[in-house]
Amino acid sequence: MLPETQRQEVSIASPRVALIGAGNVATHLAQGLKAAGVDLAWMYSRTQAHAQELAQNVGVQAISHPDFTQAPPADVYVLAIPDQALAQLAQLAKFPEQTLVVHTSGAQPLQVLNALAGVRKGVFYPVQTFSKEKAVNWKSIPICVEAELAEDEQLLKRLGCLLSDQVEVLRGEDRKQLHLAAVFACNFTNHLWGIAQELLQKAQLPAHLLEPLMQETLEKARQFPPFTVQTGPAQRGDDNTIQAHLQLLQDAPQYQELYRVLTHSIQTTASDFGLFSGKQAKND
Amino acid sequence: MLPETQRQEVSIASPRVALIGAGNVATHLAQGLKAAGVDLAWMYSRTQAHAQELAQNVGVQAISHPDFTQAPPADVYVLAIPDQALAQLAQLAKFPEQTLVVHTSGAQPLQVLNALAGVRKGVFYPVQTFSKEKAVNWKSIPICVEAELAEDEQLLKRLGCLLSDQVEVLRGEDRKQLHLAAVFACNFTNHLWGIAQELLQKAQLPAHLLEPLMQETLEKARQFPPFTVQTGPAQRGDDNTIQAHLQLLQDAPQYQELYRVLTHSIQTTASDFGLFSGKQAKND
Repeated sequence: MLPETQRQEVSIASPRVALIGAGNVATHLAQGLKAAGVDLAWMYSRTQAHAQELAQNVGVQAISHPDFTQAPPADVYVLAIPDQALAQLAQLAKFPEQTLVVHTSGAQPLQVLNALAGVRKGVFYPVQTFSKEKAVNWKSIPICVEAELAEDEQLLKRLGCLLSDQVEVLRGEDRKQLHLAAVFACNFTNHLWGIAQELLQKAQLPAHLLEPLMQETLEKARQFPPFTVQTGPAQRGDDNTIQAHLQLLQDAPQYQELYRVLTHSIQTTASDFGLFSGKQAKND
Repeated sequence: MLPETQRQEVSIASPRVALIGAGNVATHLAQGLKAAGVDLAWMYSRTQAHAQELAQNVGVQAISHPDFTQAPPADVYVLAIPDQALAQLAQLAKFPEQTLVVHTSGAQPLQVLNALAGVRKGVFYPVQTFSKEKAVNWKSIPICVEAELAEDEQLLKRLGCLLSDQVEVLRGEDRKQLHLAAVFACNFTNHLWGIAQELLQKAQLPAHLLEPLMQETLEKARQFPPFTVQTGPAQRGDDNTIQAHLQLLQDAPQYQELYRVLTHSIQTTASDFGLFSGKQAKND
């Protein structure tokens, strides 16, 4: 351990991080922080085997007990755990007095950390979808930070900049809106791609037939407001094709309903400004 | 005009194309064919100004009358018109006897061309979304061809290969399934991205915050079956977040309904094989 004055200097250059969790976000955070040269003090997971496996992969110490006052100290304690696991952690864990604890959730307000008594609170939200099996490029991932104290916000910005080229301060309500938009842009989209792939498989058609279309749809949505470049049977009011598609989906009423609801939504959304603009819907 | 024997040779190397239509597909086809060095005989659109504008841009002759027996002959007549416009064209137009006419629709069977008496029939379907304002890379666009006669199928394959590196013969029922999958993979996805962008705008947040997430979602869906890498509140059964999101959407009941139906569909789709597999749904 360095003497106190030296440690302070190291901390200013690169905050020392303790990581709680061993899931998708924790795995990628650990790898990303390590690759960025950040000092990872230790990792903890309530499932000890997970923490040990991840810690070993990354080359970090795993601790086995949630009394973090007994573990090596860190500048920031990062909770990369499911939103639902926070209450349980609050009951089990003990953090050093007045230490900085941040969560990584887009959906939760900073105040959810009130469950942890006597800590400084913050948020460190990477706007990305993480699966263990898929590597990510941290440099391109926007990181949204927030903290109660200005100096903590500075520390989180500094930590974010070590990982990513895009770090923004975003307060609770804005982060919630961003997270909701992310569910549409990522989770729901992925489900539709899953259905598309299933339909191809059912017809014994190769998945690569749709890949240029998916890529082009994305490129177009980046260059133009998506509502203004909407194409397809719903947009052009092609009822024959819509009925034929519903017929093809007759064995999957759930996908039929999705098709109906999405078609209706396309047909009743003003093409330039969307629904919230209060404009007259086009086809209603 | 070349003497007959010479024309025949030219035709074998590169079929001579006549293009009917002046919309999104026709525009990109005209540009793509021209760039590929294909001999574009002429263009026609029922809206004469559109045909003239496009023909001028591409450097092709526009014809103004739908009696195509009076126009310079072509090896293949490509209909790049909306599905709904075909009946009207069949009434107006006159094609040379026994000439090859193809449509460009994923949704329509070859037999829809029965409306045109005495022609050879085929399909030339590029699996892509086209908007006039956005250039496309034809080389990467899968083109699905079909024809009644084997020699016509060969001709369409040859024409396709001049445009694209990926040309496949695909019969009617398979093409219909592919087109349905394309609606999920492109049209519905684009609508969700439109909603995501609208939500960001409402919160005065920049669109670029979601772009790395959209790109990563696509990359993941290419590398893994999308159902197996599904993330988000629906997938992890995070009811608190789901309720909070529905609350945020209270001013847009249409998006609320979409959110509900998509969430339900994610939660009741088997993560590995989807709905058609007949497997027990996970959360139902």
